[in-house]
Amino acid sequence: MKRGRVYLIGAGPGDPGLLTVRGRWALRRADVVVYDRLVDPRVLAVAPPAALRIFAGKASGCHALPQAQINALLVAHAARGCRVVRLKGGDPFVFGRGGEEAEALAVRGIPFEIVPGVSAAVAAPAAAGIPLTHRGLASSFAVVTGHEDATKRAPPVDWARLATATDTLVILMGLGRLSAIVAKLLEHGRAPITPVALIQRGTTAAQRTIAGTLADIVGRAQAAALGPPVVIVIGEVVTLRDRLPARSRRRRTAAAITDAPSSRSSRLSSAIV
Amino acid sequence: MKRGRVYLIGAGPGDPGLLTVRGRWALRRADVVVYDRLVDPRVLAVAPPAALRIFAGKASGCHALPQAQINALLVAHAARGCRVVRLKGGDPFVFGRGGEEAEALAVRGIPFEIVPGVSAAVAAPAAAGIPLTHRGLASSFAVVTGHEDATKRAPPVDWARLATATDTLVILMGLGRLSAIVAKLLEHGRAPITPVALIQRGTTAAQRTIAGTLADIVGRAQAAALGPPVVIVIGEVVTLRDRLPARSRRRRTAAAITDAPSSRSSRLSSAIV
Repeated sequence: MKRGRVYLIGAGPGDPGLLTVRGRWALRRADVVVYDRLVDPRVLAVAPPAALRIFAGKASGCHALPQAQINALLVAHAARGCRVVRLKGGDPFVFGRGGEEAEALAVRGIPFEIVPGVSAAVAAPAAAGIPLTHRGLASSFAVVTGHEDATKRAPPVDWARLATATDTLVILMGLGRLSAIVAKLLEHGRAPITPVALIQRGTTAAQRTIAGTLADIVGRAQAAALGPPVVIVIGEVVTLRDRLPARSRRRRTAAAITDAPSSRSSRLSSAIV
Repeated sequence: MKRGRVYLIGAGPGDPGLLTVRGRWALRRADVVVYDRLVDPRVLAVAPPAALRIFAGKASGCHALPQAQINALLVAHAARGCRVVRLKGGDPFVFGRGGEEAEALAVRGIPFEIVPGVSAAVAAPAAAGIPLTHRGLASSFAVVTGHEDATKRAPPVDWARLATATDTLVILMGLGRLSAIVAKLLEHGRAPITPVALIQRGTTAAQRTIAGTLADIVGRAQAAALGPPVVIVIGEVVTLRDRLPARSRRRRTAAAITDAPSSRSSRLSSAIV
């Protein structure tokens, strides 16, 4: 029997073109794909038609598969000789619980490979015209989750220190607690005039950005009726957004993922501004 | 005359397979490529043979092109109607000065597109078996540069706050100042037993990892004679490295970048553990 193997792949921030070459290579050879909610259908379509596709994320009205069951799925399919792709939004090791999956595989002696991906923490701001670092404005950034761990196993985020420790602060999964997070940052010394941007579904066609300051962003977010996933960026770099023209920001094309023949690509290319 | 355009592309952390599909798409259509020192020759080889290749990084004994000259190059080639690829290691907006280049293009009305890349800050630790976040161990990380800005235009890194603000701390370009950085972290409250890993040329065939603690890492780095580029990771997540078997870590194959036909790919694939 052939030996199974698992690829823990970061699918990137949303835009299917931001999948890595290595990630696509593995996906094209997958027997089984275990995927999360935010993975674009065009990325999933890269897997062979006959590949078994298993949805592991939260669907409307249903709970997500518990992590232990996901680990067990990966182990079971690899043990029967399959090439298994575990496809996760962003990077598997940035709030992706890829470390737990890697451990579960290592303990059982299942060969695996980690294929890092482009994290939404970096790419969603970039798509909105916001670099996380910039000469003269920011030489450090921090990335935290705004989502409280239901099991309380994660170390608590130290907002008191974090508030002013880095020039730029990026918060993932924080929309639902935006008001509490802003209050903590103000309480611990961030100025009310600090610029803030909320980027919804960054790098996708549905991308929307709401900008403001710590003083007014909560009201603006409510008025805009933003929904997750949202990346929150806080710091002076947010002001750079006004200097980069909207038309030069990233748009998405089918060519990006399908490697269309060049005649078609050049047509599509002309549609990209 | 056709209209020029600039693609600011993150080439990823070193492994050519970690270039994005979109980045490769643009590179294949480049008339001019302006590239940095750490870009793999196999990535450069993706550009058409006739493309003009311009090296903008530091070569041995020579200075790097000043940023203003790089900006001027991008503008000049785009203005004469070329498709220009600016190829940078990692991500263009994470200590890549991509923001300055984007600004220079925007000011002159040159259309451009930012193609985010996999940052070495995330991928080098991953390739060494170290997730930046992990349930129960780390729910936040910070990324800073250890390299002091020669022009002093960057805000100084606030080591006092940063030392304990996040669970994981990642320092890029810090090898030359390792001793001073470790002293600051100890002075400001990080415990001497805090695990540290130094990852040299992460994700490439030349990858080497040296691990220790804040108390002994300076001596270990000297003994190992590490050279740049090195990613420094500090925090409990470093201990996860021991739980992930070395043979399951990422190896590189030609297939990753060349999209070799499947007969060849499956041979290469069998070489990947």
